[in-house]
Amino acid sequence: MARLVLKFGGTSVATIERIRNVASIVKREVDVGHEVAVVVSAMAGTTNQLVEWCREAARLHDSREYDTVVAAGEQITSGLTALALQSLGVSARSWQGWQMPLRTDDTHASARILGIETALMEQRFAEGQVAVVAGFQGLGSDGRITTLGRGGSDTSAVALAAALKADRCDIYTDVEGVFTADPRIVAKARKLDKVAYEEMLELASAGAKVLQTRSVGLAMLHRVRVSVLSSFADSAGTLVCDEDEIVEHGVVSGIAYSRDEAKITLVRVPDRPGVAAAIFGPLADQGINVDMIVQNVADDGRTTDLTFTVTRAELDRAVHVLENAKKDILFERLTTDDGVAKVSVIGIGMRSHAGVAGTMFKTLADKGINIKVITTSEIKVSVLIDAQYTELALRALHTAYGLDAA
Amino acid sequence: MARLVLKFGGTSVATIERIRNVASIVKREVDVGHEVAVVVSAMAGTTNQLVEWCREAARLHDSREYDTVVAAGEQITSGLTALALQSLGVSARSWQGWQMPLRTDDTHASARILGIETALMEQRFAEGQVAVVAGFQGLGSDGRITTLGRGGSDTSAVALAAALKADRCDIYTDVEGVFTADPRIVAKARKLDKVAYEEMLELASAGAKVLQTRSVGLAMLHRVRVSVLSSFADSAGTLVCDEDEIVEHGVVSGIAYSRDEAKITLVRVPDRPGVAAAIFGPLADQGINVDMIVQNVADDGRTTDLTFTVTRAELDRAVHVLENAKKDILFERLTTDDGVAKVSVIGIGMRSHAGVAGTMFKTLADKGINIKVITTSEIKVSVLIDAQYTELALRALHTAYGLDAA
Repeated sequence: MARLVLKFGGTSVATIERIRNVASIVKREVDVGHEVAVVVSAMAGTTNQLVEWCREAARLHDSREYDTVVAAGEQITSGLTALALQSLGVSARSWQGWQMPLRTDDTHASARILGIETALMEQRFAEGQVAVVAGFQGLGSDGRITTLGRGGSDTSAVALAAALKADRCDIYTDVEGVFTADPRIVAKARKLDKVAYEEMLELASAGAKVLQTRSVGLAMLHRVRVSVLSSFADSAGTLVCDEDEIVEHGVVSGIAYSRDEAKITLVRVPDRPGVAAAIFGPLADQGINVDMIVQNVADDGRTTDLTFTVTRAELDRAVHVLENAKKDILFERLTTDDGVAKVSVIGIGMRSHAGVAGTMFKTLADKGINIKVITTSEIKVSVLIDAQYTELALRALHTAYGLDAA
Repeated sequence: MARLVLKFGGTSVATIERIRNVASIVKREVDVGHEVAVVVSAMAGTTNQLVEWCREAARLHDSREYDTVVAAGEQITSGLTALALQSLGVSARSWQGWQMPLRTDDTHASARILGIETALMEQRFAEGQVAVVAGFQGLGSDGRITTLGRGGSDTSAVALAAALKADRCDIYTDVEGVFTADPRIVAKARKLDKVAYEEMLELASAGAKVLQTRSVGLAMLHRVRVSVLSSFADSAGTLVCDEDEIVEHGVVSGIAYSRDEAKITLVRVPDRPGVAAAIFGPLADQGINVDMIVQNVADDGRTTDLTFTVTRAELDRAVHVLENAKKDILFERLTTDDGVAKVSVIGIGMRSHAGVAGTMFKTLADKGINIKVITTSEIKVSVLIDAQYTELALRALHTAYGLDAA
């Protein structure tokens, strides 16, 4: 007998028919004798509708009321899933964030989990009852409903698995697992049986959309074994686990991409101490995340060109912040490019293998693809390229690193 | 400065546009300096959708999960209404049943209110904040969301007005007030400026759909002054109040009808003590409400025919219960008729005027309408007639009692 947390995303609970399917998957685990907590997202489309209503009701909406409105989506699914389980003869009870409670800080709309009280839930496990938890939501210290930000149900599930000391956290989604590359672009992409936390974290932050970055970080921190699998197919999925569990590592495990990138270059910034703080301080103050950064010394030896990336949605705001800080930064001009994409190769095997970056640069050069920015970490190399070459780059790299399916 | 509870029904909050309209009505009261609590229903159609989903998820659904699902409708509206108020510059905060809390018993799906804690809400009033309360829902002693039954938001509003000792409870709906008869049937129906609690109670239970019976009973008990008015028209509506406040009573105040009736006759029941208990006991045990009852002694002097009405939705269940109890009741046969309607004339003035029932019987006889059952109370006379004569009966009675508009 094991203790499991099963999480089902919006497409898996999009209709009553699909909720019944979810119930039968859960019943399978219960029948084996497992203790099961289920975490559900809102029915696909519901959250978007609720967010849209909030925007229509008030352009600059109060995030406390926003949270109250959007959390209703998961509330509905949790009740319906409990009902579907009951109609299969499985004892089940829904739990809202405020009922457990799942305590968060008061950062409404993107709250952080502080702790989950599970004593009552564990007592119900002992009685054979399945807990159906509304994902994405918690209770702030202000006594109000909080939400964890988009994709927060993954985080709810992993945090609950950690709190319950679950043997496994199964994330059911509409894809069959984690692939070596996006199979919609790279036809020869293969499903990975296992992937290490660190790799999954880099894959997620590099653009692979299968798991929310934050939930992977949490899984890594608490060593929660996470399985990613499809609620529509009956296959094993991908296990996200400690690297020690993976017997044989390839050098590169996967290739990710993100088109959600925009490049900003500050031309001829005086090359003096404190200039980076003058640039990135104001951006951080406005909550704008900066990703890749490169700096080149200009010919004159006294100034430097500084290039970095932000998400496309934040480009206009970032430019506005920089223009306002121009008197402190003293750049000559600012150029932007939102026609770029980030392509990343990721693999724990890189730690012990040289030449991974070299292979990447040569492969792209052979295809005539220009590299605009490069950044590396211990297990990742990322490049910024023209967005129009994204698919070409992904396929060429997938072949170059020997990832193609036979 | 007064303290008001304003309640808005489903059609009044059916779209974001209408929620904005609600916000502007509330703002008008706030601008005058009133302390305001708003009670909102779910957007029109939402509750039906949620109920339908529950039914699809489990045919015999657990009412605790049903409550969790359907209460989400009011949660959404409460947040959106708070947002719309904020965007007009009005300080506002939403309150769910569990947040106040509004405590109820554990009779899920039709819970009764035990009490409302208003201390925090009153503190916020002092700070000029409007409370936007999700109607229809409360918190059971089991720590779970309860709902008050269909139309329960009226009850929420009146109970809140009583708890807050509000000066008035305004029920905004899609009609302009309480009429002498349904204006869709009786073109000459007039809006009443005032109606006594007792009359409103009889009107509501006799079929007038403008206010939920239970909320009227609660208003009468706590002497809450209730105003019924339209959120779409700028007119005064109808005040439901103590009869002492009404200077001049007509003999009859209004005529109500209900097509939601079915008649059951038990033929040749032995006329002996305990037979009524044998019949109505089992029905009560199954939660089936019996309305009109008449008993005639048959020619033989030893048996009696017993006729009574139930709601149409409960007819099949009632017949089933009676057939099962046949060995105790010993009736010869059972006949049913679901093609009947109940027509009632109501007025506090009846107490001091004789001949009201006589006028009713004569008026119906003149139109050739046969009366199947008659019941009377101190301020009401009800008759059961063929459903096809409903409109004819209403118009004729409206004229006969001098209620027609000039």
